[in-house]
Amino acid sequence: MRIPYDELFDGLLRVLLKLGFEQQRARLCARLFTDASRDGVYSHGLNRFPQFVRMIQTGVIAVDAEPELVTSFGSLERWDGKSGPGTLNAYRCMDRAIARSRQQGIGCVALANTNHWMRGGSYGWQAADAGVIGICWTNTMANLPPWGASDPRVGNNPVIIAVPRGKGHVVLDMAMSQFSYGALASYRMRGEPLPVEGGFDAAGWLTRDPVAIEASRRPLPIGYWKGSGLALMLDLV
Amino acid sequence: MRIPYDELFDGLLRVLLKLGFEQQRARLCARLFTDASRDGVYSHGLNRFPQFVRMIQTGVIAVDAEPELVTSFGSLERWDGKSGPGTLNAYRCMDRAIARSRQQGIGCVALANTNHWMRGGSYGWQAADAGVIGICWTNTMANLPPWGASDPRVGNNPVIIAVPRGKGHVVLDMAMSQFSYGALASYRMRGEPLPVEGGFDAAGWLTRDPVAIEASRRPLPIGYWKGSGLALMLDLV
Repeated sequence: MRIPYDELFDGLLRVLLKLGFEQQRARLCARLFTDASRDGVYSHGLNRFPQFVRMIQTGVIAVDAEPELVTSFGSLERWDGKSGPGTLNAYRCMDRAIARSRQQGIGCVALANTNHWMRGGSYGWQAADAGVIGICWTNTMANLPPWGASDPRVGNNPVIIAVPRGKGHVVLDMAMSQFSYGALASYRMRGEPLPVEGGFDAAGWLTRDPVAIEASRRPLPIGYWKGSGLALMLDLV
Repeated sequence: MRIPYDELFDGLLRVLLKLGFEQQRARLCARLFTDASRDGVYSHGLNRFPQFVRMIQTGVIAVDAEPELVTSFGSLERWDGKSGPGTLNAYRCMDRAIARSRQQGIGCVALANTNHWMRGGSYGWQAADAGVIGICWTNTMANLPPWGASDPRVGNNPVIIAVPRGKGHVVLDMAMSQFSYGALASYRMRGEPLPVEGGFDAAGWLTRDPVAIEASRRPLPIGYWKGSGLALMLDLV
């Protein structure tokens, strides 16, 4: 079943307005979810929307909270997300980073007290659309075992690099695990095995079974020890 | 056979002075080669020194060329390496990036017309020793096939991330191939197979044989398509 873009957008917009979002913020939020679905990233588009709604209903996400500038120095800014919607906080901060880069050559914004930004690539596209190189990443829960460990201690922190080009931007958006949990869920829902080993099962054997990896929470990092190291560094920086 | 640090340093220093290096530059260059060997990165330490000497003797590297500032804007600077020694050019540019970061929050220096910087991690340690986070990478020859391709079109561009800490810095220094060519050479010289598949042989099969991968020039990127994407982005940025 295929749903026209506008139909999905309108449906999500209606829900967001009912939840108390101000009109402009509801439109941006609906667009970010709809764009992710349009681009095939269902795991951070429509499929995630019900959870987003629940987090608003349970008060984890503050619908009308706007991020605030905490400190600023040269190319750097620190912002407090005030537990507002992660998508809107991230969008606002990328906007600030873009503005700052025009004055300083580089703009770098750190954002705290926020929640899931859904598809990180959205903010890479945002930068590229503005004609600048965009690099961003986020930490996440400890859901990836460091190389050689059996329990999750680092996050599979996604990193995004976007380079603007006249004939179509080049945007990389990837998690530090060989398969993100969103990708594992997609394979599970399609009933397909992974194309290559993607993690360990409960007994510690490498497996292509997405269900076994979701259960063990032991996905493989990209490049074995290398992705594990990169994940650690993204946590540290 | 183990060689004391000072003995190696003195030996390299003597050769560099004979080649026409000015005293201070010779000392820094000898130190960078010696440190890499001390830390076990022989492929970019002593093992590479004869090739470095040949490049000076054939005029590829200009012993006394100093890098020059080309343009500057906010956090950014562009430098021309003037074909001087890659190690000294890189060290100078990281020094500039550190200085600029103290004024601007971030310092970013791009360096052209240079040659091999040997161990990239050296400049990460340099940043961390100065108390700042260091991120650097370089492009290289096309020695890595993009995902799905059989001929090398992107470089296995190494990336370095260094985070300073009182009790020992954390420094990541890795190539975009699962095994760098330096690492392949180390396994070959020890007569050992790789611990995991590291690339394709001439017939297109995955192999742990370092010799077969050096011959095919088809190393695996880290994380299959993910490392391939990251390598591309490092080329583009």
